[in-house]
Amino acid sequence: MEPVKVGLLGLGTVGQGTVNVLRQNAEEITRRAGRSILVTHAAIRNLPKAEALDLKNLDLTIEPTDIVDDPSISVVVELMGGLEPARTLVLRAIDNGKHIVTANKALIALHGNEIFAAAQEKGVMVAFEAAVAGGIPIIKAIREGLSANRIEWLAGIINGTGNFILSEMRDKGRSFEDVLEEAQALGYAEADPTFDIEGVDAAHKLTILASIAFGVPLQFDKVFTEGISAIAQEDVIYASELGYIIKHLGIAKRFDGSGIELRVHPVLIPQKRLLANVDGVMNSVMVQADAVGPTLYYGAGAGSAATASAVVADVIDVVRTLTSDPLNRVPHLAFQPGALADVPVLPIEDIWSEYYLRMEAEGRPGVMADVTRILGDQGISIEAIIQKEPESEGASVSVILLSRRVREGVMNQAIERIEALSSVTSRVTRIRVETLA
Amino acid sequence: MEPVKVGLLGLGTVGQGTVNVLRQNAEEITRRAGRSILVTHAAIRNLPKAEALDLKNLDLTIEPTDIVDDPSISVVVELMGGLEPARTLVLRAIDNGKHIVTANKALIALHGNEIFAAAQEKGVMVAFEAAVAGGIPIIKAIREGLSANRIEWLAGIINGTGNFILSEMRDKGRSFEDVLEEAQALGYAEADPTFDIEGVDAAHKLTILASIAFGVPLQFDKVFTEGISAIAQEDVIYASELGYIIKHLGIAKRFDGSGIELRVHPVLIPQKRLLANVDGVMNSVMVQADAVGPTLYYGAGAGSAATASAVVADVIDVVRTLTSDPLNRVPHLAFQPGALADVPVLPIEDIWSEYYLRMEAEGRPGVMADVTRILGDQGISIEAIIQKEPESEGASVSVILLSRRVREGVMNQAIERIEALSSVTSRVTRIRVETLA
Repeated sequence: MEPVKVGLLGLGTVGQGTVNVLRQNAEEITRRAGRSILVTHAAIRNLPKAEALDLKNLDLTIEPTDIVDDPSISVVVELMGGLEPARTLVLRAIDNGKHIVTANKALIALHGNEIFAAAQEKGVMVAFEAAVAGGIPIIKAIREGLSANRIEWLAGIINGTGNFILSEMRDKGRSFEDVLEEAQALGYAEADPTFDIEGVDAAHKLTILASIAFGVPLQFDKVFTEGISAIAQEDVIYASELGYIIKHLGIAKRFDGSGIELRVHPVLIPQKRLLANVDGVMNSVMVQADAVGPTLYYGAGAGSAATASAVVADVIDVVRTLTSDPLNRVPHLAFQPGALADVPVLPIEDIWSEYYLRMEAEGRPGVMADVTRILGDQGISIEAIIQKEPESEGASVSVILLSRRVREGVMNQAIERIEALSSVTSRVTRIRVETLA
Repeated sequence: MEPVKVGLLGLGTVGQGTVNVLRQNAEEITRRAGRSILVTHAAIRNLPKAEALDLKNLDLTIEPTDIVDDPSISVVVELMGGLEPARTLVLRAIDNGKHIVTANKALIALHGNEIFAAAQEKGVMVAFEAAVAGGIPIIKAIREGLSANRIEWLAGIINGTGNFILSEMRDKGRSFEDVLEEAQALGYAEADPTFDIEGVDAAHKLTILASIAFGVPLQFDKVFTEGISAIAQEDVIYASELGYIIKHLGIAKRFDGSGIELRVHPVLIPQKRLLANVDGVMNSVMVQADAVGPTLYYGAGAGSAATASAVVADVIDVVRTLTSDPLNRVPHLAFQPGALADVPVLPIEDIWSEYYLRMEAEGRPGVMADVTRILGDQGISIEAIIQKEPESEGASVSVILLSRRVREGVMNQAIERIEALSSVTSRVTRIRVETLA
């Protein structure tokens, strides 16, 4: 059979990794795909820099339309990142009848509905395994491996930089700012780390996961997103004393019949959970489904070769299904927009959770009585409350509290009232608690 | 489109689970498969018992050939277990042009080569996700999710009963016999528990995993298999003191260029590893691959609904690819026997490992000198050696030793010489150590 020709948009670390993996494992890949796969073209921004890579048998161009319009190319791999011109180029490639593989989570999270609709119309495939959790085949696991199930919820460590920071804060007692600086020096975090530490990157990925798990449209704008920059070293320590670890999770959950929750925020999880033991830059996603129960997937969420692993797996999947009836192709790798369930996303005030609260208070009797009275008034049960000894006579004390399950809107009212107490001298730090069971 | 009709061979717990899952999630499954899937027929042994289940719209028969010969049935799901008549019926169904989904690990491990060759010839699919690690989509992950990679090794907790026994021995200080009795009472272990505790069940699954990971034929007879019945409570305790946990693993590994290792046996693994924290009846497989690095998959390895989850996912995959070119179908779900690499399986004497050794010795000076001299003579480096205090004057003492990496044949010679020492009063307990890194 004729080799399948692939054109790359972008030849950065993941693009180079993709070329390397396809060439290094060419023999096994040919066996698995049923025919050979050749990267023949790559569009780059900096021609001299790309030429210096000295990649053999690869036509380089600075004009990406050369690739999306080339009739010899069957699969376009988009690795440019960002929204534009990626969106325009992908839509043009689809219009030209090409299949798309992309690692671009922002593009899929924000423009996926439009892109999948165009692909559906043209009978081409759009694959994006590399957009979520790097090399972990999580999209495939949810869409195909768990296809017999109704997914109840999923929770994932889906930003490696954030997890690295929290792991270092816990294991080495370091401050958030100190670890962030190191992460930037190591190249984990961007120079502007906002997307990582404020949860935007995780929200992109959660948008995609939820869409596949629940069969709902991509709706990035409805994800509640809270970063990790407000996590203090003392919260890490107190969580540990209580038997918990703080992780930054993306959570998608069905709530009774009434809606779904989409949220990215720090979470206290019990130390014994597997997710609690996922350290450093690694990613992991836990999925609770009605037939199979809990399953968990773990691996590298970023990096040149790990991301290329997912890109190339998608290319192989596309090649495998090239001979199938176009009507059967689309649901295999992309969405069926027409069939998507119309389930509302709940506002964050309507989620139910347990909570960890920490506040500073005057070191005198009566503070705990004040706080517990407010919670009692709001109908919030307390699982544990701890008042630390003041460091010196008259110094302020830390009060730490674990609540039972309550609606977030009710907890917000309680926090407002606690912050209004004259004996409470700080804002209340609030971290949600998930038992993941 | 016409619904796809499925016939079941066997209507035990997994068969009933399969009917339930397909009916309960019919709407989502239809959306994912692109057409509806109906279980129309089931062959059972005990007609009155099956009729008592009161499953609507299901034709029951005690004659399985009614199903494999029925022209209205496209997919035969084999859930009888055992080798015969399962093998004959599956081959006959393939000959009739039907696709096969099976949860039968013994059948695939022992007769898979023959079955895949027959399927290849007929252009039908044979899917067997449920045969390994129950509901975890591990076959799909390795074959499709990691299809860009050269797999270097995999190691898995793939027998839930064995893992339950080892977890209880560690957490509750119980004896092997005591926990085994409970496992039998709970229905985890068979009345004859040999397949579970002697590693035969795990060896079936490892045979299948290795075949997919390395593209080699199924070769169950070459798997080195050692059970957990020789693990004593004191080994569990000493392992823990040294920072390890004992797990029963199936391991498949490429060894340089010269061959592959296929082995099932107890292993000491460092406590910090995720696999070390997989407890009770849960299963988990870790895969080390050249591009993506380590990935791990976790979930229920048995049970009616969890196994049905994998069975139904396979049925959906088969239905999705029904319209594809038969030439492209087979590699998607089964093997390509013609393309399989011809790599020898190494005898256990030729593997390299670290070792944990425990022996009883006379409580007098000089024993450690004798033992370390023998190891030194054999060129084996020692990482740690501990001699426990005798419980009373003149009582025997336990000597525990961790070696560095050495070829097993060399270690065997050393053990033989140690057992010949007059100061050593017991056989040497030997457990392999894997760092899994």
